[in-house]
Amino acid sequence: MSEQLYYFEDMQEGMEASFSKTVTEADIVQFAGVTGDFNPVHVNAEFAATTMFKQRIAHGMLSAGFISTVLGMRLPGPGCIYVSQSLRFRAPVFIGDTVTARVKVTGLKPERNMVTLETVCSVGDKEVITGEAVVMVPRREQA
Amino acid sequence: MSEQLYYFEDMQEGMEASFSKTVTEADIVQFAGVTGDFNPVHVNAEFAATTMFKQRIAHGMLSAGFISTVLGMRLPGPGCIYVSQSLRFRAPVFIGDTVTARVKVTGLKPERNMVTLETVCSVGDKEVITGEAVVMVPRREQA
Amino acid sequence: MSEQLYYFEDMQEGMEASFSKTVTEADIVQFAGVTGDFNPVHVNAEFAATTMFKQRIAHGMLSAGFISTVLGMRLPGPGCIYVSQSLRFRAPVFIGDTVTARVKVTGLKPERNMVTLETVCSVGDKEVITGEAVVMVPRREQA
Amino acid sequence: MSEQLYYFEDMQEGMEASFSKTVTEADIVQFAGVTGDFNPVHVNAEFAATTMFKQRIAHGMLSAGFISTVLGMRLPGPGCIYVSQSLRFRAPVFIGDTVTARVKVTGLKPERNMVTLETVCSVGDKEVITGEAVVMVPRREQA
Repeated sequence: MSEQLYYFEDMQEGMEASFSKTVTEADIVQFAGVTGDFNPVHVNAEFAATTMFKQRIAHGMLSAGFISTVLGMRLPGPGCIYVSQSLRFRAPVFIGDTVTARVKVTGLKPERNMVTLETVCSVGDKEVITGEAVVMVPRREQA
Repeated sequence: MSEQLYYFEDMQEGMEASFSKTVTEADIVQFAGVTGDFNPVHVNAEFAATTMFKQRIAHGMLSAGFISTVLGMRLPGPGCIYVSQSLRFRAPVFIGDTVTARVKVTGLKPERNMVTLETVCSVGDKEVITGEAVVMVPRREQA
Repeated sequence: MSEQLYYFEDMQEGMEASFSKTVTEADIVQFAGVTGDFNPVHVNAEFAATTMFKQRIAHGMLSAGFISTVLGMRLPGPGCIYVSQSLRFRAPVFIGDTVTARVKVTGLKPERNMVTLETVCSVGDKEVITGEAVVMVPRREQA
Repeated sequence: MSEQLYYFEDMQEGMEASFSKTVTEADIVQFAGVTGDFNPVHVNAEFAATTMFKQRIAHGMLSAGFISTVLGMRLPGPGCIYVSQSLRFRAPVFIGDTVTARVKVTGLKPERNMVTLETVCSVGDKEVITGEAVVMVPRREQA
């Protein structure tokens, strides 16, 4: 029984999906622990208070991880291959912010089974990360 | 006392730094737990055995996180602002692989304090992620 | 925008959903850390070697948690209220086992918006937990 | 040296034990991370604010895990086999609530070494989970 949600034949421009999570202090601590990114702006409240943000901010790659969550679990979902991702960090994410990662299909390349998606992470109305993903999606006939 | 390692005035083309970590099963479990990315290719050994990779693979964004670690802790280090990152996922990372993230300064834009770096994650001789980062680095005179 | 997947009106007998995860040593360590259940059969490899299981076993409530994952995220999904759960622990789960939690709608009580589901966790062909869940699912008209 | 606290011969009706823990945001984040249960009522503060509970609630299985903690560590303690558990979720647990899991022996079946216990999780005077556990407890003569 396949876990694959969508095959290339199912993909259409305009399809959308999202994932949301409130970023907590615990998330930042754990993300630092896994990646080794102990940049004081993330894990040192005293240092962070001296920066332009005045407080600790979440790792940009944590929010970027939510894009991977949507792509790998919801659209196109399990079975797709992550080819590339561009990330433009536009605004900081603070402890307590609820980040929503949204992806939207913007292009299809049938000859290579490639799908291009616009990827946006936002907190309320503010875009915190913008960018584009390319994934390869297996065809039903090949599965 | 500042934690900032390098100021814009210190940055020169060709400067390099790296960070390495062996990716364990525990890292993948925790990364899934923080991001919500329970794509079965990462957390389901039976499903993963049916894929082209034959085993579980690490989240691409986990290795991407190591790039953030180098940038934020070593070069340019604390104080820099992450502006953008492009990621091309070239090969999978398996449990037990030691990933090295290397960054190398390739360009400077003095008028905006911007630094461009080539970013590569590799396992042994194989490049698993290639891409480019742009960071803004405060000047000493402004600090 | 609601995150609710299914409303009571959508629920029908026979509907099914599942969630799978490979249970790792790291999962057991973290589950012990969160719940405080440091029963040596879970966290002490030397003690566990002296038991009938000959090795550490996962917490039964960890696998039970996967049932909650299916109910709360896939069927009926966000918005449902967990009313009750019975659990019969039939066989141990070892490190490296891939647990699949399956739920199947077996009954509907329209007058109280209640849905009964058969809940089974299995490793391969072996049932490790059997039981029944009752959830309350909001109606579309009330949302 | 055995870690077993009580043998079947030691068990008597009316014996009681408990375990308490304050449920923090970090506990909920980690429980979601281990089980994969990212139901927005647990991890999305904005969504949770729109529900009848008005805020994030802890996973019911986290509190249920505390019952397992009492059974496996205090009464009857290490060596017992968890046979079954029924759970009736009566009220939500919020971040900051201190949950106490209490178990009380209500029946003994000497022919099968089975012990039945009433299991209650409470926050202050409010019962949040009620139910019943059955465990098998090895006899001293067999150990």
